[in-house]
Amino acid sequence: MAHSYRLVVSCPDQVGIVSRVSGFIAAQGGSITEANQHSDLATGRFFMRYEIRFASSVDDEILRIAFAPIAETFSMDWAFHDTQRRKRIVLMVSRASHCLVDLLYRWKAGELDCDIPCVISNHEDLRDLVEWHGIDFHHIPVPAADKTHAFEETQQRIEAARADAVVLARYMQILPPSLCERYADRVINIHHSFLPSFAGARPYHQAYERGVKLIGATCHYVTQELDAGPIIEQDVHRISHCHTAQDLVRFGRDIEKTVLARGLRWHLEDRVLIHGNKTVVFA
Amino acid sequence: MAHSYRLVVSCPDQVGIVSRVSGFIAAQGGSITEANQHSDLATGRFFMRYEIRFASSVDDEILRIAFAPIAETFSMDWAFHDTQRRKRIVLMVSRASHCLVDLLYRWKAGELDCDIPCVISNHEDLRDLVEWHGIDFHHIPVPAADKTHAFEETQQRIEAARADAVVLARYMQILPPSLCERYADRVINIHHSFLPSFAGARPYHQAYERGVKLIGATCHYVTQELDAGPIIEQDVHRISHCHTAQDLVRFGRDIEKTVLARGLRWHLEDRVLIHGNKTVVFA
Amino acid sequence: MAHSYRLVVSCPDQVGIVSRVSGFIAAQGGSITEANQHSDLATGRFFMRYEIRFASSVDDEILRIAFAPIAETFSMDWAFHDTQRRKRIVLMVSRASHCLVDLLYRWKAGELDCDIPCVISNHEDLRDLVEWHGIDFHHIPVPAADKTHAFEETQQRIEAARADAVVLARYMQILPPSLCERYADRVINIHHSFLPSFAGARPYHQAYERGVKLIGATCHYVTQELDAGPIIEQDVHRISHCHTAQDLVRFGRDIEKTVLARGLRWHLEDRVLIHGNKTVVFA
Amino acid sequence: MAHSYRLVVSCPDQVGIVSRVSGFIAAQGGSITEANQHSDLATGRFFMRYEIRFASSVDDEILRIAFAPIAETFSMDWAFHDTQRRKRIVLMVSRASHCLVDLLYRWKAGELDCDIPCVISNHEDLRDLVEWHGIDFHHIPVPAADKTHAFEETQQRIEAARADAVVLARYMQILPPSLCERYADRVINIHHSFLPSFAGARPYHQAYERGVKLIGATCHYVTQELDAGPIIEQDVHRISHCHTAQDLVRFGRDIEKTVLARGLRWHLEDRVLIHGNKTVVFA
Repeated sequence: MAHSYRLVVSCPDQVGIVSRVSGFIAAQGGSITEANQHSDLATGRFFMRYEIRFASSVDDEILRIAFAPIAETFSMDWAFHDTQRRKRIVLMVSRASHCLVDLLYRWKAGELDCDIPCVISNHEDLRDLVEWHGIDFHHIPVPAADKTHAFEETQQRIEAARADAVVLARYMQILPPSLCERYADRVINIHHSFLPSFAGARPYHQAYERGVKLIGATCHYVTQELDAGPIIEQDVHRISHCHTAQDLVRFGRDIEKTVLARGLRWHLEDRVLIHGNKTVVFA
Repeated sequence: MAHSYRLVVSCPDQVGIVSRVSGFIAAQGGSITEANQHSDLATGRFFMRYEIRFASSVDDEILRIAFAPIAETFSMDWAFHDTQRRKRIVLMVSRASHCLVDLLYRWKAGELDCDIPCVISNHEDLRDLVEWHGIDFHHIPVPAADKTHAFEETQQRIEAARADAVVLARYMQILPPSLCERYADRVINIHHSFLPSFAGARPYHQAYERGVKLIGATCHYVTQELDAGPIIEQDVHRISHCHTAQDLVRFGRDIEKTVLARGLRWHLEDRVLIHGNKTVVFA
Repeated sequence: MAHSYRLVVSCPDQVGIVSRVSGFIAAQGGSITEANQHSDLATGRFFMRYEIRFASSVDDEILRIAFAPIAETFSMDWAFHDTQRRKRIVLMVSRASHCLVDLLYRWKAGELDCDIPCVISNHEDLRDLVEWHGIDFHHIPVPAADKTHAFEETQQRIEAARADAVVLARYMQILPPSLCERYADRVINIHHSFLPSFAGARPYHQAYERGVKLIGATCHYVTQELDAGPIIEQDVHRISHCHTAQDLVRFGRDIEKTVLARGLRWHLEDRVLIHGNKTVVFA
Repeated sequence: MAHSYRLVVSCPDQVGIVSRVSGFIAAQGGSITEANQHSDLATGRFFMRYEIRFASSVDDEILRIAFAPIAETFSMDWAFHDTQRRKRIVLMVSRASHCLVDLLYRWKAGELDCDIPCVISNHEDLRDLVEWHGIDFHHIPVPAADKTHAFEETQQRIEAARADAVVLARYMQILPPSLCERYADRVINIHHSFLPSFAGARPYHQAYERGVKLIGATCHYVTQELDAGPIIEQDVHRISHCHTAQDLVRFGRDIEKTVLARGLRWHLEDRVLIHGNKTVVFA
């Protein structure tokens, strides 16, 4: 039975990497069905992503042991991802439902190849919607006075769910540094502005006040510095003087939905490689 | 012979404005060929722009005198613009030619309904191109040590040209406050970023460093605060990790050209009304 | 208590329309909060839409009787729409859920100001989803051999629902001429191509075969000629050689959703005026 | 001294191609600075493009002889392009100058890495502009009664110019089959509609009549069937009921310029691979 892997590599650039890696794959009987490479001239770093199909089932462990010497030669950060193993994604939401409705639709329609073990929210509002999809819903209130316990419980839920990644689908709370660090490069946020413009609170109202002619949304990995992590995807929508701040919020919901869905899909397919505070996206 | 005017009004909103203005125009025998209105709910201010065609020639002065009482009743800021009187636009450039080539092409092709009495530059590079179009070229160097004389000469040239407006088509020098004030609401700049992101110097390099996924350009009126004036138009272009800062500069040239050309065209057609630090654009 | 109407007019263009209409509204104590006008030079037809707010409640009937003489003078097609009376929209779907999920989300979130008395489908698949939203679901199979009875029942359901309009949210059946005629200008369809390209069946596959670089979707009013009615809205999405026909279908779902939602919203707000086989959209 | 090549390959897909090709390049001391691959699942064809840098100068002939056995093994269509050898491009125009002005600006600014031995036109109008850029201008009238001689002279001019490709920058004449065949896959046209919509004459007027909400332009290779060749690039611009057919023409000029410039640039950089009636564009 056919078996597919994704090989993702980043390492210092030098002559011969592609030759060695593609030679290895051919030797293992693998066929490269999609290939992406990028050489960053500014930093001298090389990035690659291969989709590889083997005609019959392959043992992960053997593949990894066989590849390790090549990886060492080139000082690679690397991973083989078995495409049959679906990533486990925990969604976190607050009260606004648009991103959640959108992600659950896509998940149900097969556009997002992942499991969703649970949804965590600081409000009860979206329980019905989540449970209608057959997904567990955990209500963890986050009292302004003391958020410590809430985030401890949150972390326990995430770990109990054996989450590969966490998606903040308009969660509206700032995660504590410990959680950011514990899930570094694995927490995806949607920010409702075209970053770096209008970081922080009420970005649509900031945009309205400034009189910009396009508004946007940004999907990025969460780091300890607010709204400053590596950007995965962005998009914009044209507005005019006719539109109120409320209209901006409404248009923005549509951008947020599509930008987050694209960013998550790419993450699930191992298309996003982090490079310092930037990303390489093999979309 | 038919004669067209544009009436542009802004005033506090109240019942009856449209009725009174349109009644006045009908009484004068004018036909409204294009009408735009906007009520800003946040500030209670009303904006309108009418294109009016009279079957035969009309005397400006009589029109203005007849309208004055209505304007006073409603505390209007207002103007009748005779469409037969072409605005006089002075272009200012540095070394980069892309915006200049684009504006001169459009001007020659009849897309920009204005006269261009002269082009002012702090470098000699673009003299040939300008003079090939039959336009005067003034080279006014701006020495870093003392710019006072340069800007005095600049202001004299602008005044001698009887300029209605000045376009900074990638001029790359900061105008002195006196000039900003003298030509308030009449100096149009193209900034090579999606403001308010990346204000100031080398915006494409800032965008490259931040790892954004779209870059942009902004056409705005110049105020004394750098890159902070009312925005007329903006647009963006998608980029990816493949692109160097140099690629961003190249893509950016295309956005700058179209955004500036659109902004200038709207200004020439009296479609841009300034409202505090924002604009109403009846495009 | 404040009361709002929308006045929608189309008539042969001539001097004095705006003056008479705005004078009438001022005389009735109405305040124009949004105004749009368009003079079509090619056909000499004039279109207008006013949003009018009255400080206190107004009797429809009196308003209409008072306006009738003006309407007659100018040979107007016209209507006053009471904004407090929500339009009744019947949705028709087949098996694909994306447009339905999207419309129901927007309806629930208050983005679509209408009632949805029922959803009609030729399949059972989407019953659960519809009923979860508290909306009636009617399953009317449409057998290939004889569709007459199905469409009779459909028409009865639509009439029983006192529908103001019908939305074909990927219904995938061609309505019979009688139904098209009965609900002329009131049946809205989403076609999954950038019309007039790729009319008819399997448009994404046609687009894939032709090798276009952008795909699109079109929201239009249904007429008896297939995919040829007045276009309300269109949009596109960039694709490349990397994408399979299946990818096109996936991207297309997102365009279809947003294009249909925009078209329906404008229809609900009386922003779409039909002009022969074209539309004037005061968006 | 460093020396760069582009290797472009298409062949039936099979295991081991990348490994063999990259192994060959590494063995020759070449470094792959940009790599693109595509496996077309529908046809089983494989496409690749490598940018290769050698630290010192390399002899073309030796490179080709060394690669030939690999090419034969995999039944490749292939070419090594020396990046130091600039392609020779003949431009053909009629009276409209917008595409020509744009291409000449980009060429002068270094955005288009090619030589332009001459411009051919059926009218005299653009001679000045062309000659100001230091380029030969040939006026070859094309009388409606008999175009044979005109196209013979055209072909002679193209051959005398040793053209690698011909760009129809709004030439407005249909090339004879003999010329299409002689320069198959090397004549690039800009069509002023979003093909396959509105093929043939006066596309903007067709679009205006149909009432579409977006207009477009298409850059494609010329084949004997009119407006039906492989599409390289397309783009669109939003319009509304406000816009006349003349406005569509004006907006269209901007789309035509950017779409043609992009298509030509990709052609010059050997990024466009023809695949039946479609293209693979490694942009």
